[in-house]
Amino acid sequence: MVDIATRVWNHKWKIDPIVRSLIDTDFYKLLMCQSVFHNKPDARVTFSLINRSSEIRLADLIDEGELREHLDHIRSLSLTRGESTWLRGNTFYGKRQMFRSDFMEWFEGVRLPAYHLEKRDGQYELTFEGSWPEVMLWEIPALTVLMELRGRAVLDRMERFEIQVLYARAMTKLWEKLERLRALPDLRIADFGTRRRHSFLWQDWCVQAMIEGLGESFVGTSNCLIAMRREVEAIGTNAHELPMVYAALADTDEDLAQAPYQVLADWQEEHDGNLRIILPDTYGTEGFLERAPDWLAGWTGIRIDSGDPATGAETAIAWWKSRGEDPRKKLVIFSDGLDEDKILELHKQFSGRVRPSFGWGTLLTNDFRGLVPDDGLAPFSLVCKAVKANGRPTVKLSDNPNKSMGPPEEVERYKRVFRVGAQTPMEVVV
Amino acid sequence: MVDIATRVWNHKWKIDPIVRSLIDTDFYKLLMCQSVFHNKPDARVTFSLINRSSEIRLADLIDEGELREHLDHIRSLSLTRGESTWLRGNTFYGKRQMFRSDFMEWFEGVRLPAYHLEKRDGQYELTFEGSWPEVMLWEIPALTVLMELRGRAVLDRMERFEIQVLYARAMTKLWEKLERLRALPDLRIADFGTRRRHSFLWQDWCVQAMIEGLGESFVGTSNCLIAMRREVEAIGTNAHELPMVYAALADTDEDLAQAPYQVLADWQEEHDGNLRIILPDTYGTEGFLERAPDWLAGWTGIRIDSGDPATGAETAIAWWKSRGEDPRKKLVIFSDGLDEDKILELHKQFSGRVRPSFGWGTLLTNDFRGLVPDDGLAPFSLVCKAVKANGRPTVKLSDNPNKSMGPPEEVERYKRVFRVGAQTPMEVVV
Repeated sequence: MVDIATRVWNHKWKIDPIVRSLIDTDFYKLLMCQSVFHNKPDARVTFSLINRSSEIRLADLIDEGELREHLDHIRSLSLTRGESTWLRGNTFYGKRQMFRSDFMEWFEGVRLPAYHLEKRDGQYELTFEGSWPEVMLWEIPALTVLMELRGRAVLDRMERFEIQVLYARAMTKLWEKLERLRALPDLRIADFGTRRRHSFLWQDWCVQAMIEGLGESFVGTSNCLIAMRREVEAIGTNAHELPMVYAALADTDEDLAQAPYQVLADWQEEHDGNLRIILPDTYGTEGFLERAPDWLAGWTGIRIDSGDPATGAETAIAWWKSRGEDPRKKLVIFSDGLDEDKILELHKQFSGRVRPSFGWGTLLTNDFRGLVPDDGLAPFSLVCKAVKANGRPTVKLSDNPNKSMGPPEEVERYKRVFRVGAQTPMEVVV
Repeated sequence: MVDIATRVWNHKWKIDPIVRSLIDTDFYKLLMCQSVFHNKPDARVTFSLINRSSEIRLADLIDEGELREHLDHIRSLSLTRGESTWLRGNTFYGKRQMFRSDFMEWFEGVRLPAYHLEKRDGQYELTFEGSWPEVMLWEIPALTVLMELRGRAVLDRMERFEIQVLYARAMTKLWEKLERLRALPDLRIADFGTRRRHSFLWQDWCVQAMIEGLGESFVGTSNCLIAMRREVEAIGTNAHELPMVYAALADTDEDLAQAPYQVLADWQEEHDGNLRIILPDTYGTEGFLERAPDWLAGWTGIRIDSGDPATGAETAIAWWKSRGEDPRKKLVIFSDGLDEDKILELHKQFSGRVRPSFGWGTLLTNDFRGLVPDDGLAPFSLVCKAVKANGRPTVKLSDNPNKSMGPPEEVERYKRVFRVGAQTPMEVVV
């Protein structure tokens, strides 16, 4: 029997919204948002979409009117009562009331600020300007809308069974990865794939498949909405955005050199346990660790997000040893361009020496490589970054020069201040 | 929104019936049924289930109570008004009113006769005795119930996503076959996979996938219910059952030798065009053609259902030439153990020399080989055959001694009467 009311209701939607909730975002955005809300509420920041895969001409693929409809829809969203209850009442990493009342009251009233959209050379220039805690909330929805609209443009040209077989192939592909991973003892793996997912429904499928396929080895998802609905742990800590904006706000080279540590000092005041994860690579991992204050060595772990991951982990192990810490007790979260081969390799190399953990992103939630002609659904490297703070450009160096950002003269200044020498370029797949 | 009424209604079913319609059967059963109804209505025939794959212990896998419930449900079915309308009003092979009024009136009132079920040595002995036109209707539902219950027994032990990925794999597997086949020019291919299908829903999916994936090359399905619902041609002609029973009813060796031709003489009175398809292998193709009356050479084509298919087709080509017929105008329907490799090979070999056509069966609708551990869903060789007629055993020789049936002394007599010499045994996969 057809549920006539449902069918009629569904036809009333003007669009099929890609983002339907303010918490369809990464958990760490909310953690960072709270930190920013307390520490830098008045900073004016600009976020900007950057398509590193310039051969994908997004403005030719995606209709501007449709994109605006989705962005406008996101601006109409506000936190629902149930979402607020979940954020206020849930246990995150075993701790209740991670989000304080003042932040929650603000967050309940927030709407996403205006966007600025233009076409240029087959690409969209999409920027968001405003107070940091508000504007930062655009990053994930902007990315997911563009990723999914690009997918829809390709799917629009396909027939019904062709589409069904496409998803059948994608499901099989993921399941075969899970079958390989489930064999690993003591695996800890989380979904970090929100930003460049194929679609919301697909990410939700991936999470459910991991719940069944990996059992205890699946530790949670970075996506708050999916974590809430599927009753799994929301996962995440902090990102490059914090040191990048803190650094841009620094008035002198001395302040600049201290900025990344100031971020973590502020963070330490709010968080303990599993949230005390160092992200060391914004301005070069080696120098960051060398000059780090001793209290940082006592943190729970580290996240390796650029450069050769094994090298990064070895650097961290040597650093902990030099500071009198036992690396075997430390969490090492690998989160850069992972796929199951890399996970298997890193797990083998570091299991027992540290507590390895994996934040599996794009190749979990968007491995549609090879599934349609001309590889039209292969993931690509789209980011949405803080590019300015209080009028000054931001800079990111990372451990891979192909991931660096910022005006050349500023990049040079940062390299000098942070004493970064030669770096090995590595291909950025996603 | 949940449709509450539908959900409550669904919970009222005592079983999830595998066969829900009397026309969920092969079209040729109905054509043959009409022929039998007119020519041999009083013959008493016994059908019996035969599991050639004795290593599959069906009685251990399938609960007897459940099997009985499904068989009882089938006995409760009768032709619906819409089914009757479709059979009466449809065009089959371009001809209307293929089913005569006297047959349709009888068919509208028919219920399937009693069955006899016993367990022996891990297998079910399932037999049906009664008047030929009634009892013959059991063949297909009996097979589909046992095939699907065996599948359900395996699926019962699987988790939700495991099941979804299983079907994803099966869909991908079929689609890849269709992608290879769609490249062939002038392909004619039909679904002949009802009897040993994985399940009804899966066969229905396969047919829909072929409609989209093969376009004009897909000529129809043998399944009447699916043909009706999906608005495609119902396909089929006649089967070994006719010559086997006619032969068993023959009182003398002379009558026996004539029985296969008598079947086709009766058939010719009722049918023309695409329904005039010779099935020559019941008692050996070579002898059958050699001694065939000239009028048979004028028929539309031949179906090759055992032995080496290329040899069978070459034999037919030589025979047509010897009788002054042009083989290029003749339909050659290959229907034995086909898969896409064999189809590609035979199409290449015979395209242009005859009009090749393919009745794709078990490896279309049940290729679950390699998809679960221990290959628990691989198809197997289950048949349901007329084993007795008016108290006498039936015999089938076919062009493959591994497919022969009947008491040894009768097999010897038939070999003598039909002058069948040495035959090449071939593995029976399905």
